[in-house]
Amino acid sequence: MTERTEFRLTVSCPDQMGIVARVARLIADAQGWITEAAQHTDTEARWFFMRWVFSLPENADSELAQRFGELAGALDMQWALTRAASRPRVVILVSKEPHCLTDLLARWSSGELPMEIPAILSNHRLLEEIAGCYGIPFEHIPVTAETREAAFATLQDRLRALQADTVVLARYMQILPPNLCHEFRDRVINIHHSFLPSFVGARPYHQAFARGVKLIGATCHYVTEDLDAGPIIEQDVVRIRHDDQVADLVRKGRDVERWVLARGLRNHLEGRVLTHGNKTIVFD
Amino acid sequence: MTERTEFRLTVSCPDQMGIVARVARLIADAQGWITEAAQHTDTEARWFFMRWVFSLPENADSELAQRFGELAGALDMQWALTRAASRPRVVILVSKEPHCLTDLLARWSSGELPMEIPAILSNHRLLEEIAGCYGIPFEHIPVTAETREAAFATLQDRLRALQADTVVLARYMQILPPNLCHEFRDRVINIHHSFLPSFVGARPYHQAFARGVKLIGATCHYVTEDLDAGPIIEQDVVRIRHDDQVADLVRKGRDVERWVLARGLRNHLEGRVLTHGNKTIVFD
Amino acid sequence: MTERTEFRLTVSCPDQMGIVARVARLIADAQGWITEAAQHTDTEARWFFMRWVFSLPENADSELAQRFGELAGALDMQWALTRAASRPRVVILVSKEPHCLTDLLARWSSGELPMEIPAILSNHRLLEEIAGCYGIPFEHIPVTAETREAAFATLQDRLRALQADTVVLARYMQILPPNLCHEFRDRVINIHHSFLPSFVGARPYHQAFARGVKLIGATCHYVTEDLDAGPIIEQDVVRIRHDDQVADLVRKGRDVERWVLARGLRNHLEGRVLTHGNKTIVFD
Amino acid sequence: MTERTEFRLTVSCPDQMGIVARVARLIADAQGWITEAAQHTDTEARWFFMRWVFSLPENADSELAQRFGELAGALDMQWALTRAASRPRVVILVSKEPHCLTDLLARWSSGELPMEIPAILSNHRLLEEIAGCYGIPFEHIPVTAETREAAFATLQDRLRALQADTVVLARYMQILPPNLCHEFRDRVINIHHSFLPSFVGARPYHQAFARGVKLIGATCHYVTEDLDAGPIIEQDVVRIRHDDQVADLVRKGRDVERWVLARGLRNHLEGRVLTHGNKTIVFD
Repeated sequence: MTERTEFRLTVSCPDQMGIVARVARLIADAQGWITEAAQHTDTEARWFFMRWVFSLPENADSELAQRFGELAGALDMQWALTRAASRPRVVILVSKEPHCLTDLLARWSSGELPMEIPAILSNHRLLEEIAGCYGIPFEHIPVTAETREAAFATLQDRLRALQADTVVLARYMQILPPNLCHEFRDRVINIHHSFLPSFVGARPYHQAFARGVKLIGATCHYVTEDLDAGPIIEQDVVRIRHDDQVADLVRKGRDVERWVLARGLRNHLEGRVLTHGNKTIVFD
Repeated sequence: MTERTEFRLTVSCPDQMGIVARVARLIADAQGWITEAAQHTDTEARWFFMRWVFSLPENADSELAQRFGELAGALDMQWALTRAASRPRVVILVSKEPHCLTDLLARWSSGELPMEIPAILSNHRLLEEIAGCYGIPFEHIPVTAETREAAFATLQDRLRALQADTVVLARYMQILPPNLCHEFRDRVINIHHSFLPSFVGARPYHQAFARGVKLIGATCHYVTEDLDAGPIIEQDVVRIRHDDQVADLVRKGRDVERWVLARGLRNHLEGRVLTHGNKTIVFD
Repeated sequence: MTERTEFRLTVSCPDQMGIVARVARLIADAQGWITEAAQHTDTEARWFFMRWVFSLPENADSELAQRFGELAGALDMQWALTRAASRPRVVILVSKEPHCLTDLLARWSSGELPMEIPAILSNHRLLEEIAGCYGIPFEHIPVTAETREAAFATLQDRLRALQADTVVLARYMQILPPNLCHEFRDRVINIHHSFLPSFVGARPYHQAFARGVKLIGATCHYVTEDLDAGPIIEQDVVRIRHDDQVADLVRKGRDVERWVLARGLRNHLEGRVLTHGNKTIVFD
Repeated sequence: MTERTEFRLTVSCPDQMGIVARVARLIADAQGWITEAAQHTDTEARWFFMRWVFSLPENADSELAQRFGELAGALDMQWALTRAASRPRVVILVSKEPHCLTDLLARWSSGELPMEIPAILSNHRLLEEIAGCYGIPFEHIPVTAETREAAFATLQDRLRALQADTVVLARYMQILPPNLCHEFRDRVINIHHSFLPSFVGARPYHQAFARGVKLIGATCHYVTEDLDAGPIIEQDVVRIRHDDQVADLVRKGRDVERWVLARGLRNHLEGRVLTHGNKTIVFD
């Protein structure tokens, strides 16, 4: 057998009879060998979602892409055909808290997160050393009440210049301006340190402590113009006890934040997350 | 050694130096043998909580209770000395959903829940047969918009006549009037089918589905005048998927509701739950 | 649109290029509308597994089944085409412990488990009353050391006469003879009260207590001739503490047993469990 | 009030009536103010365990220690009185896998693990750079089949010279010699990458994959002369799926290993773990 390359196809379109047969036909004609396939039909919205992984012979992808483009036009599909081995460019934004950043870097370093990290941007200098340990360029873009607008214009320019496919807010304690959210729609991932929709906004661990909940959580979501209200990618919780103070919630919460962000980001990078309205379909 | 009986002592009082030594002295003087001890100090509120279990020789408890009463007066304690084998009288209120009721009855029948069930009260007749299977008296107290006030007066009378120590709302879909909440403060346990404080009020599974959360939960709490805002005793969650419809959330949620209610109730029956302000201390 | 009926197709066969396209073609030709699709390729064993759900127009299934049979022959497939609404006949075997039985009956009664229960068989009379509460015939087949062989011959006859599609050992504390395991291969489901492969055999909670583990578990598996060694369908665990005695392990374990058995059985009934060698593929 | 210092007292002794009263008397006499108290009675072994935290006035601890020593002699106690703020010296042993080491260093750096790390020892040079990032001395002690005996003699000397209170095997892939285990009894902590007692020994993820379990786990335990059989401190599991290959088990398992080791070690460092026979009491 000749050399083959793995591709990933994601599709989102209005549901109708026969989609699978038509897609499968194209792939079979291209000598594609399917190794993973996940589908979902939202019966209420009458919408169809799929993510397939298949190998193709050398150079078969451009013709497949062309024929698929015709089908996609006919079926009103949003779609993407991507080399499975591709590594998106992820810019990480941080402030002062190191735990999510060190976790992402360790996972990236071990090969667990298939991405390039062209730069780490921060409104503080505190985490510069960690970036250095992993050999990642660090850029300081201070944000103050007065410079806020200019700072975010700079930030947005840098994201463009760095050709960021995805932006991760790894406890970046700033609210992004609407136009940045808009430009990078479904590409900015935030980790919020509560089990949303509980405890939106500032100091969620203090809110959780005051309410006396028995579990605390973290939520990984796409950032939209509405604070902490974008499509949820991943969530999890950890049990707390009556003798846990706010500092204990912060400590226990860090584990959940790390885990939820890493898992959400990995699914995003592997093309496993599709959005529809304010919800996600996660083919994990 | 003569026959000994197990007792349980719970205490809640302003914190000060030497409480443990003074309580331990009294118990040692009464020939008490401590087998379980749990304590908690709320350093912010400067409040002390404890739950001890110990055995006493025949008839030593009344003198201990008297001496303890004197100490409690001096230290401004709320306290209770209870035979560990005592079985509180629990009246269960239900509407149409059987899953929490059947679960409680099965657990009660197996000896897992140390309680008597003098009666099951309901605003519908649907679950009468299940009560019969377990030989528990069933009383029908219909509630309509017009009869609401009279119905709850009847209900309150019945709870008194049945000498209810604890009232469990096992998916009883009615809001209790404030005076009933007040009379049975810290003794009415509700199971709410969401991870509070998310999705307060009606149809929480529909709310959760609309928001696109990745976990759903249930909350067992004491009922207060404020809807779904009383002290939380127990919570847990279960993972849902993008292909789960509202009916699936309801189905998966039933498991969490059952488990959370059973665990919260058991801790309550064993005197493991103390309240302070709007929070609980759970010595489990 | 004319009346349509939902069908479920499961397939297991040697992997090769183009399977999906050929299956999808047949279904599209039959005017099938796919609503659920899950696939798995075992790249090591080079084996392909799928479970699709689709609706067909009135009376289209017999022709599809015939055409599919031809394809299946060509591709060496094991396959099944089943009405999605079909309800397998499940015979439940019990001994003295009620908790799994009451749980299954409550779930069946609420519609959560799509099955018929033609009978409950037991080597004791203890659970006859519970069967009666739910209106299920109860048959007593005593098993003693002397009558063992005859008893199991009777049991096997009864399973045939009752046309059992599936047999559930809901804490049936007897080891089935090899020929019964063989006749009902992949159709006898057991719940073992440990996290297999830990604590095979008798008294697993005592074994777990002696070893000092921090979590205990339960395992739902298909029964084979090898004790507690069949393909695992579902497992879960619960945390225990240093002050939990064996009786507490038994109590906490009951919750896991119930949950694991119910979930494993539901997946089995909905055709979500395929086996290959000593492993399962679970399309949940 | 004068300056006060927090101390921690742990006790393990044969159970008898009045222990708590006598200990509490001593602490009250020393003007001690108890802020945390946990106890456990093993009713089978008739053994008593406690861990109390209390503050003492300046310089009151030496007299308390003397008086407590007398009581301890009378009651046959094993005991320790430790400044709560003390930071044990922990030597970390690693081989080639970085994930547990980087996790421990990040947690140590954030103040979550109250310890000093005098050195990281390894039989390979691979992780030297990470140690450097955190400013920890790194020592290379190669181990080969021929040099094994001498290498472990060197290692043992280094542990003594470094005044190691605790030794952590953070995926150190060597079996320690019995005399080292003996000298550091209850002070060497290992993380084993399976849910013990399942999958003892080499390549547990491969064993788990072959058996087809639905959850994999990790176990943190004290090292004894018997491989993977010492007292278990902490365990946890993570769910796997039928499409997870061995590499996925390794990846998912890393998260559990990190979490279980960090939690077990933290409890050990805070004096929350007592051993009795082959079991642990964990006052968390």
